[in-house]
Amino acid sequence: MKQTTVIRLKKVELDRPVLIEGLPGVGHVGKLVADHIVAELKAEKIMEIYSPHLPPQVLVQGDGTIRLVRNEVYAYRAKNGRDMLIIVGDHQSVTNEGHYELCGVFLDIAEEFGVERIYTIGGYGVGQLVETDSVLGACTGKEFVDELSGYGVEFRENEPGGGIVGISGVLLGLAKLRGIEAACLMGITSGYLVDPKSAQSVLKVLCKIFGLDLNMQALQDRAAEMEKIVAKLREMEQGQQPYESTTSEDDLRYIG
Amino acid sequence: MKQTTVIRLKKVELDRPVLIEGLPGVGHVGKLVADHIVAELKAEKIMEIYSPHLPPQVLVQGDGTIRLVRNEVYAYRAKNGRDMLIIVGDHQSVTNEGHYELCGVFLDIAEEFGVERIYTIGGYGVGQLVETDSVLGACTGKEFVDELSGYGVEFRENEPGGGIVGISGVLLGLAKLRGIEAACLMGITSGYLVDPKSAQSVLKVLCKIFGLDLNMQALQDRAAEMEKIVAKLREMEQGQQPYESTTSEDDLRYIG
Amino acid sequence: MKQTTVIRLKKVELDRPVLIEGLPGVGHVGKLVADHIVAELKAEKIMEIYSPHLPPQVLVQGDGTIRLVRNEVYAYRAKNGRDMLIIVGDHQSVTNEGHYELCGVFLDIAEEFGVERIYTIGGYGVGQLVETDSVLGACTGKEFVDELSGYGVEFRENEPGGGIVGISGVLLGLAKLRGIEAACLMGITSGYLVDPKSAQSVLKVLCKIFGLDLNMQALQDRAAEMEKIVAKLREMEQGQQPYESTTSEDDLRYIG
Amino acid sequence: MKQTTVIRLKKVELDRPVLIEGLPGVGHVGKLVADHIVAELKAEKIMEIYSPHLPPQVLVQGDGTIRLVRNEVYAYRAKNGRDMLIIVGDHQSVTNEGHYELCGVFLDIAEEFGVERIYTIGGYGVGQLVETDSVLGACTGKEFVDELSGYGVEFRENEPGGGIVGISGVLLGLAKLRGIEAACLMGITSGYLVDPKSAQSVLKVLCKIFGLDLNMQALQDRAAEMEKIVAKLREMEQGQQPYESTTSEDDLRYIG
Repeated sequence: MKQTTVIRLKKVELDRPVLIEGLPGVGHVGKLVADHIVAELKAEKIMEIYSPHLPPQVLVQGDGTIRLVRNEVYAYRAKNGRDMLIIVGDHQSVTNEGHYELCGVFLDIAEEFGVERIYTIGGYGVGQLVETDSVLGACTGKEFVDELSGYGVEFRENEPGGGIVGISGVLLGLAKLRGIEAACLMGITSGYLVDPKSAQSVLKVLCKIFGLDLNMQALQDRAAEMEKIVAKLREMEQGQQPYESTTSEDDLRYIG
Repeated sequence: MKQTTVIRLKKVELDRPVLIEGLPGVGHVGKLVADHIVAELKAEKIMEIYSPHLPPQVLVQGDGTIRLVRNEVYAYRAKNGRDMLIIVGDHQSVTNEGHYELCGVFLDIAEEFGVERIYTIGGYGVGQLVETDSVLGACTGKEFVDELSGYGVEFRENEPGGGIVGISGVLLGLAKLRGIEAACLMGITSGYLVDPKSAQSVLKVLCKIFGLDLNMQALQDRAAEMEKIVAKLREMEQGQQPYESTTSEDDLRYIG
Repeated sequence: MKQTTVIRLKKVELDRPVLIEGLPGVGHVGKLVADHIVAELKAEKIMEIYSPHLPPQVLVQGDGTIRLVRNEVYAYRAKNGRDMLIIVGDHQSVTNEGHYELCGVFLDIAEEFGVERIYTIGGYGVGQLVETDSVLGACTGKEFVDELSGYGVEFRENEPGGGIVGISGVLLGLAKLRGIEAACLMGITSGYLVDPKSAQSVLKVLCKIFGLDLNMQALQDRAAEMEKIVAKLREMEQGQQPYESTTSEDDLRYIG
Repeated sequence: MKQTTVIRLKKVELDRPVLIEGLPGVGHVGKLVADHIVAELKAEKIMEIYSPHLPPQVLVQGDGTIRLVRNEVYAYRAKNGRDMLIIVGDHQSVTNEGHYELCGVFLDIAEEFGVERIYTIGGYGVGQLVETDSVLGACTGKEFVDELSGYGVEFRENEPGGGIVGISGVLLGLAKLRGIEAACLMGITSGYLVDPKSAQSVLKVLCKIFGLDLNMQALQDRAAEMEKIVAKLREMEQGQQPYESTTSEDDLRYIG
């Protein structure tokens, strides 16, 4: 395989869908959000995308079967409300050029379905444990900024200072060049841990935007577990106490 | 040379062969197994594969002559039993894209010979010295999992947790996309040392599967030597004794 | 996007323009100089250049909108004096091959406009804080060396010893192969800090060469701020005093 | 520039020349030898080779002019004896694939001139200061090994253990695939310092092979200077004395 390859599993008709992208990144916020939407909306997988720019790796599933790492496109046909395309996956590109190439492939798909708006989801790592449900935004155009401000998305001057790196950034940038409106929603997170709480904050904003009423139990459960771990980490930090054996190995499986 | 190049040395007819791949990797388990099969079955080299994705390196042989690092395809025509194609070599790809490209080349060869099943061989590094003859498996499909379980191959939920990285993984993943059944057999090994004992465990499973009766003396001899080294390493570890001069340089040549 | 892409925003006629390149590099000298020229001459943006060899990143602007990292070409039509093309941008290539590819693109543009002379601007990092307004030069030909010597540009045997690495070097090298005269002007700088003072030194030389009378206030203001910081750094170095809280966070925003 | 580019400066007729390659590498042995041959034989430059796989860098020459890093081909027409093509240059490829690509280019040139034998020159780093004029060899074929043994070239089993990495290795390997005889001559060297003494050893062997009588003064002078430095380093090592100021900066310019 020398080229990025799109395998089409199913043909669907969608009415001017929005595209939501959530691949693994800072705090896994994007992946948590997009996976949750796919699960709750029972969206249907319509494409698999394989690429030599993804890691050379297969994943081993619970039943002993494998699958090559990939990105996937899911389709959701709304009864009332917005149709959606959702991009999820195991990894982002591991090469510099791969980010540009894969975003080009995603945008070709978006244009094929007449997508007019793209939402990319990520985490904004601030380097310390934080208690906030702020969601930071960045958009291709000023009206989109104003519109999202109305949903509580924050736009802070010079943040993120380093720009947005990786798929969520490049997809915005290349969408702008093709005249497609796009926004990145970033949950604020420490950047050290998988952060289902930050994912919830972003998801709430998306639900408001699309008038969706999604069950958040799964994310809440994971967030509750992470909070216990975070509480312990804080204790250890403050008391400089040695690692306590009461934190079971099981809890820690959620870190990283 | 800008492209992966296949040099065909000999034309052979094979009857629905299986393909076995064993290139250097964790514990060199794959390479030890595949090289042993080639030697014991007196399989015949039919192709050499050169690629700019292999290291830029020649090997110097005992007589002062060199050869470019490469992968090789051997053919075995069984009197009774299964015909085989065996892929061996000096190195795996050293670039990300190279893994995908070389696996594509291997699968083209597999399809040319009508291969229906592929076995990739690797080591599963657990990070500590272990005494086990367990062989871990991963397959493209559930029936294959069940079949291999019958030969004693273990399938453990969430193991290997990091998936299978490199040629043995990608070959499985891309085979699945082409509709070819494939399995990876992984000998459990520390990951620190060349492990002929772990290779023996995998080889025994393969012999059962194919009804082969291979002489294992060569691997046993190497395993015995490694065990002596391991025993000394254990001693040193436990007693925190300084390195003893009784471990000759000669012994250590087998490490790494 | 698999290829470097040039987006043409405006058609302009220029009379045998010179090309000035100033992208981020050592001390950001090149970028400071070229950005200042663009601002003071009110040069007009005529092209945007996007490339998979630039980092996979968008920048977030003050109003919450983003843009993909890029290089830009500005045109200046002189009332009297030299017409100019100025190349500025957010980043240099992050891949080895990308430097060669992007320089090829820049030279195609230069040839299209009949450019006969190219000036690339950079910093020459000497590894310690320096007080000098020396500008070091390197040229494609000896007559150009002599000519620039007349403007006070210094040519020192074996400096820079390591040659000129990156876009400012490769552009010179490839220009020579195409028969276009080119020079690199390097402001001497520590290499540790953004250096608007060094940029001013280079700018003064350029003004002499082109008979320009540019307002330098903006660079002077930044230089004055940096000098305060440098003074504090020197104090700390000499007195080995701990970091003083009187250096506000605000000051330090200019470093790096 | 997206492709390796060969610029032909002069057309020459050669009678079944040998090709000698000496690019920078371990101890700079190859470069010292090839540059010395070019200078002493007054060989003529006939080609320049530029490539995006070389570093993105120009070199600044004594008179302030620059040139892009490159490889060069020189031709020597012998009055009596062997015609020669000599490949010299500033750098080897800095990418993995570049080694394969550039060697392909070199071999195309070799075939164009009817080259039947290639000599690549390198250093064999042993990791400590050594006093030896041994030259280690490796060849594409056994007869060539025997022939070179007659000239005092040593062939040691399993040395170099790690094979030959880089241009000198790949050129041998790819030459073999094209049916061109090739040998690598390696001067034994510490690997820490530029080693003109080791270069002399290799040069003496080459002179014997080709019946040449080259003046070695230039290499002898550099070797004498290096010996003084090495002597001082040894002293410092044994006496664990602090660095003495009698080692002038000037001496050290020859290191590295």
